[in-house]
Parts: sequence; C-alpha cells; structure tokens
Amino acid sequence: MDTSEKFIRTASKLMETQGYHATGLNQIIAESGAPRGSLYYHFPGGKEELASQVITRNGKTFARLITENMQENITPADSVRNFILGVAGGLEATGFQSGGPLTTIALETANTSNRLNQACRDAYQAIQEAFTHKLRRLGISGEDAQTLAEFILIAIEGGILLSRTHHSNEPLKHVANTMHEYLGH
Amino acid sequence: MDTSEKFIRTASKLMETQGYHATGLNQIIAESGAPRGSLYYHFPGGKEELASQVITRNGKTFARLITENMQENITPADSVRNFILGVAGGLEATGFQSGGPLTTIALETANTSNRLNQACRDAYQAIQEAFTHKLRRLGISGEDAQTLAEFILIAIEGGILLSRTHHSNEPLKHVANTMHEYLGH
Repeated sequence: MDTSEKFIRTASKLMETQGYHATGLNQIIAESGAPRGSLYYHFPGGKEELASQVITRNGKTFARLITENMQENITPADSVRNFILGVAGGLEATGFQSGGPLTTIALETANTSNRLNQACRDAYQAIQEAFTHKLRRLGISGEDAQTLAEFILIAIEGGILLSRTHHSNEPLKHVANTMHEYLGH
Repeated sequence: MDTSEKFIRTASKLMETQGYHATGLNQIIAESGAPRGSLYYHFPGGKEELASQVITRNGKTFARLITENMQENITPADSVRNFILGVAGGLEATGFQSGGPLTTIALETANTSNRLNQACRDAYQAIQEAFTHKLRRLGISGEDAQTLAEFILIAIEGGILLSRTHHSNEPLKHVANTMHEYLGH
C-alpha cells in the first residue's frame, strides 16, 4: 500500500469512530506508521484535504456496494430490504463503530467548512445515483426511481444514526422492514 | 437568566453549529459572557457534563415541540406531514445551521463517551415517547404507535442530516410527503 493510501485508510477509520474534529493529524500519523513529512507532501492542505479524500472515497465505496450487492432478480421491495439488512449486519459486525465516516463529518462540517461540505454533497449524490440506477434496473421508472432513491438514503442515514447511538441494529432492521412494506412487498 | 442557564444555551448553540469536539470551553466562556470560574462551579465535570445537559435539554425541547405542536384534530397522515414541514421550516429559518445539537453529538460520541452516549439514548427515547403518545391520541393503537414513532424519528433525523448537508429543506419536505403517503393520506 502506498503512503497516501495508508493515510486515507487510517484517517477514514479514525474519523468514522470519533469524527473529524476529534481526529488530530498527530494521531493519524502515529497510527499510519508513515513519516510526518510525507503527510504534507501527499496532502499539502493538511487535515481538511485528507478528510475531503476520505469523504470522496467513502461515497464511492458505498455507491459500489449498492451497484455490486443489491440484488436484481427479485422485487424492488425485497432488494431494498435485503440491502439494508446487509448494512445492518455490517454495522453489527464492527460493534457499531462503523457506519462510514460520512454521516458524522457531514454534520460536523455542514456550516463550518465549504470544502468538506461540498465533498459530502458530492458523496451523497454519488450514493443516491447508484440507488437510482439500481432501482431503474429493478423496473422502477425515471423520476420515481430518483425520488425513492433519496428516501432510501435518508432512511438508511437515520437508521445508522439511531443504530450507532443505541449500539443495536434494530433501528436499521426497522428501516429495512418499513421500506419493504412501503414498497408493497 | 442565571449563569448555569447561560452556559447551557451558549454551549447548545455552538455545538449545534460546529459539533461537540470543535467547541472549546474557552469559546463557550467567551460567548456566554460569564466568568471562567463559574463554569466549573456549575459544571464540575467540565465540557462533558455541560454537553450532557445540552443533550438532555434538547431531547426535552423536541419532545415538548411534538406534544404542543402536533395537531390532533386531523388524520395521522396530515398531522405527521404538517409536523415535519414545521421542522423543515424551522431549519430553513436558521440558514440550515440548526436542527439541534443532538444529531451531531450522538454520532461524535456514540463510541467515545459512555456518559454522552447514554444522554443521547435517553434524549431519543424521550422524543420517541412523545411521538408514540401523540400517535395514540390520533387513534393509532398500542404497539403500532411505538413502531411508527421510531420510524418517524429515524426519517426526520435522516432528513435533517441531508437538509443540513445540502443547505436545502427539500430532503425534509420529501420525508414529510413520503410519510404522508406511507400513512395513507
């Protein structure tokens, strides 16, 4: 793994657990095991630039997860439910530490960093587009797919928030089942 | 306003905009206009104790908003939609800076502070109970009211996250309309 990649992965893991502001450059450098000077060489903009790449990466990873893992040969209702149950399982497997750094950083920086706010908008846009594309493949038409994609994203994000807070995947499972019911089985 | 109240309000406003970790005690003291020594007098546990009271206060305020403002003489679908539209309007009125300090702090501290995590759980519980109580008054029976209350909370929290990120109340309006449709008009 190259040094730049090491920094992104370490920062992503730390910011996922503790957020953007609580994560210091010193901690990122120490845990990555890379020399201090190389951080500014790869990320001249320091922590903000690094976080921006963490956000972009996280958006792409989530979008790929949708594209690759959301089933296509079943009803939209079953496909959406199964996908959200998969997210719930992933969250539980990490002791409710994960859920992506995106949600926390988006809230922390919505009104305090234009650069990170823009990166978060783009990341959510990429996730939403992946859902839209998948829903169209599942037979949901144009605008409906877009509208539904946004609601699925909103419900998953709310579910992640409550699941992380309660250290329980019950809220996300609840989202999976309600979306299933909403989509008419 | 007494000094303790001044600290809670100042901390609440700052943590709402920038989160828990980015808000320093020095900034809270400076903006509250109260003497430094009085902070530790009222909050011997420092920032964590102050944040815990901010969270509890925010949960109670949101619960009261539900109890007092959610209409009762209309259908559950209309009542839920109108309430969420009210939240969207409130968020827009503050330039998408508000939305409560709870969401951000819940994510920032879910795995890093037992005390604040517990306060967030209690606050969400209080909000959920206020929804449950109101839904029962609207004629929705026992367990259904509880299940629906949790989903409304999840969808609102996800809507706040996306609305704050996009500086637009469209995501929350989307939640209002989808909940209306889900509840069958």
